[in-house]
Amino acid sequence: MSQTTDLADRIKERLVPFPRPHFLSAGDLNPPAALALLDLADEFVAHNRAMDGRPTLDLMAGRTVVNLFFENSTRTSSSFEIAAKRLGADVVTMPVTASSVSKGETLIDTAVTLNAMKPDVLVIRHSASGAADLLSQKVGCAVVNAGDGRHEHPTQALLDLLSLRRAFGDVGGLTIAICGDIAHSRVARSNVALLSMMGARVRLIGPPTLVPGDADRWGCEVFHDMREGLEGCDVVMMLRLQLERMAGDLVPSTREYFRFWGLDREKLAWAKPGARVMHPGPMNRGVEIDSDVADDLSVSLIQDQVEMGVAARMAVLAALSLRNDGAVR
Amino acid sequence: MSQTTDLADRIKERLVPFPRPHFLSAGDLNPPAALALLDLADEFVAHNRAMDGRPTLDLMAGRTVVNLFFENSTRTSSSFEIAAKRLGADVVTMPVTASSVSKGETLIDTAVTLNAMKPDVLVIRHSASGAADLLSQKVGCAVVNAGDGRHEHPTQALLDLLSLRRAFGDVGGLTIAICGDIAHSRVARSNVALLSMMGARVRLIGPPTLVPGDADRWGCEVFHDMREGLEGCDVVMMLRLQLERMAGDLVPSTREYFRFWGLDREKLAWAKPGARVMHPGPMNRGVEIDSDVADDLSVSLIQDQVEMGVAARMAVLAALSLRNDGAVR
Amino acid sequence: MSQTTDLADRIKERLVPFPRPHFLSAGDLNPPAALALLDLADEFVAHNRAMDGRPTLDLMAGRTVVNLFFENSTRTSSSFEIAAKRLGADVVTMPVTASSVSKGETLIDTAVTLNAMKPDVLVIRHSASGAADLLSQKVGCAVVNAGDGRHEHPTQALLDLLSLRRAFGDVGGLTIAICGDIAHSRVARSNVALLSMMGARVRLIGPPTLVPGDADRWGCEVFHDMREGLEGCDVVMMLRLQLERMAGDLVPSTREYFRFWGLDREKLAWAKPGARVMHPGPMNRGVEIDSDVADDLSVSLIQDQVEMGVAARMAVLAALSLRNDGAVR
Repeated sequence: MSQTTDLADRIKERLVPFPRPHFLSAGDLNPPAALALLDLADEFVAHNRAMDGRPTLDLMAGRTVVNLFFENSTRTSSSFEIAAKRLGADVVTMPVTASSVSKGETLIDTAVTLNAMKPDVLVIRHSASGAADLLSQKVGCAVVNAGDGRHEHPTQALLDLLSLRRAFGDVGGLTIAICGDIAHSRVARSNVALLSMMGARVRLIGPPTLVPGDADRWGCEVFHDMREGLEGCDVVMMLRLQLERMAGDLVPSTREYFRFWGLDREKLAWAKPGARVMHPGPMNRGVEIDSDVADDLSVSLIQDQVEMGVAARMAVLAALSLRNDGAVR
Repeated sequence: MSQTTDLADRIKERLVPFPRPHFLSAGDLNPPAALALLDLADEFVAHNRAMDGRPTLDLMAGRTVVNLFFENSTRTSSSFEIAAKRLGADVVTMPVTASSVSKGETLIDTAVTLNAMKPDVLVIRHSASGAADLLSQKVGCAVVNAGDGRHEHPTQALLDLLSLRRAFGDVGGLTIAICGDIAHSRVARSNVALLSMMGARVRLIGPPTLVPGDADRWGCEVFHDMREGLEGCDVVMMLRLQLERMAGDLVPSTREYFRFWGLDREKLAWAKPGARVMHPGPMNRGVEIDSDVADDLSVSLIQDQVEMGVAARMAVLAALSLRNDGAVR
Repeated sequence: MSQTTDLADRIKERLVPFPRPHFLSAGDLNPPAALALLDLADEFVAHNRAMDGRPTLDLMAGRTVVNLFFENSTRTSSSFEIAAKRLGADVVTMPVTASSVSKGETLIDTAVTLNAMKPDVLVIRHSASGAADLLSQKVGCAVVNAGDGRHEHPTQALLDLLSLRRAFGDVGGLTIAICGDIAHSRVARSNVALLSMMGARVRLIGPPTLVPGDADRWGCEVFHDMREGLEGCDVVMMLRLQLERMAGDLVPSTREYFRFWGLDREKLAWAKPGARVMHPGPMNRGVEIDSDVADDLSVSLIQDQVEMGVAARMAVLAALSLRNDGAVR
């Protein structure tokens, strides 16, 4: 009992206002703000693990969080939903299929409509790059980008950072390889930005068809060979291959792809001894990653990433709520 | 702090029992009951706007509201969901696609089943006129009609009344034109009933194919010409055109429709100077209404209507809960 | 007020830990544990009926229940959702259509992902027999089987037992006929196990194509003739006929089926005078059961079963939460 009270107290002590009114991209953070969110998230991890007597939090009591997912997603949508509910918020989750989109309403009309219902936070996922930013200009509440096209997925970057800090203590000086379909990946863009900001060295590895031409300007080294790219890496972050891209000219076949770019024990051995493996999920087993590696808890951080996702989103939601308290909007 | 306490107190002072056990049609209200609900709703508007420290309400704590939507709707379903959650109720929202309807169960079986789970309020939308009324005869809880076929949509009429009272002070003596597809519109039917009851003069304007033959018996003047009908109007309420009706003989094309019946600046100028524009949403921009008019906040009440929707539904749900407390059922 | 306080106190007094960490099959219960759950469920029935001032329960405050339904179901899914919410839990309901299943993720990956979000209870329905059991080996939280293929649906058996005990006082010595499509029915399997355990005599009645060949080894008498089988029965439990099976060779037509196996007044008269009728729903009226019988509240327990479903599930969820408090997991 006194233990859980202590936890609630520690959460309140660590609570910080979010540095900006919205969380649209990794660039909305700065190093001290990111570290403060990680400290707060660490307390939420402890909270979430306290399954025999998790105290009820009221940091978002009376507040309304709307999840507006124009793309389906079990893990991200339920991660935000669980995070918001554990903070005591009212949550309304709107899957795209049940929405008025089928009646021809535009994103902006939907947003303006929802905004008039006075939510406190709008979490949006949309297939168009820039959708979250556009939305944030039309509404009076905090907007969290849960993935917009190939642009950004900043809470993913924050949860990856949290997983890495818990595994390595500090990401400064780590060498991290992001591998696979870089070109279409919002996860890659947000991670490059945040990990670089926090002092990690980030490499991009993938076939020329899946690495954007301007990737060298992202401040990363680019490799088109797994062996070369993985050498000396502390972390190997695999990306999901969008299987529908197999149909085009970008990738010959899943078997070919796995042979050259799929992470298995053999390729992992090219990285530093003790290197850890990440994947944002959902995985295509046997395409970009081998089950043997993915499920080995001594190297894989993949389950950690999901757990850290709830904690990191709790930190973001709580910090945004505090920031917007009393703010002119 | 004392400000939010005052607000919670004022809400409790204004709380009135609903005049009847269900809210199936505008005719369930009478002028004093409608005014009392508007007074209560005004307090909920203030509550919803208090985003930096909205107090938690417990007017429906321990109660269960079931949203049973046989027709998809973002705005109405989420409006009821947010309203009920802000009152502290447990809310279960069932989109038609996830329901047993696909297993061939009838509306009545679904209703009787849900009723056995002892909800306190059942909010229903259904494509059949009379569905809500039928349901109310089979269940032991309060039923709210969220739209039944072409019949009624009474909470829409109440929220429209709330928007109008806030814009004009009083609707008595206002001249209000309802324009477009009257024949298929439950919004029109509920608004004609409630606005007439509250002392407004209501006109119906639309092409002969979209105005029901007996509309003169509704107690409204009927016009088949926008210019003539809009003359002297304080309010222009546009209705959504069901685009699927384009396929039939009722409407020639969206372009033709817009030319004769779509509200733009030019047609709006035919109404009284300072006339306000309403639309229940979702809008077909460029079909029944021009964006230039819809988005001009100096004339358009459309965003207000959405905001008032949550407040009006909070008033209805809270008043129904109070009415059914201790009532023989 | 003191009445509702008494009720909350009685609930706490009757609260017992669940006998096992998961509820996967009727065999997870034993007679004293089943009776204790029924006693607890009786209090929840009283609680659910107290519609004018139902007290808020906090037995699952701060806990997260995830509903993971790979098969659609209004009644079971909403029954669990209402049960969990009335206990104060946070509930996340994931219909299959909104899940990552469409992205090719496996059941196990979905489960492991959800598990990492630290839910306290995972309620699963899946078309594969054994899915719930498999899941329970992969997660750290309590798993409740809400139906796995043709295998088991143990909360249905518990709610049926609750309905029977309330109707008859005791099921010991009752003769209960389960009729229709036994072969494909998880409801039949769970009921045979639990009712036999509690001292009832269970008979199976159905056409040879729909009764499994090894049914005599279930400890039940098997009949292929309704008249013979119903003679002397206190209870007639009809099963839902999966209409898609009509296409195959198992059943000739719905009319033929109703003639020989559908329960109507005439066939019901073959059972004991005063015999009661049950059905797990949703019913195919005019196929396995006649509306005349189903809707006659003097013989039908069908609505009771739905009501008892919420109460029985509240008992299971509350007991599992207590069991897992402080348990090593």
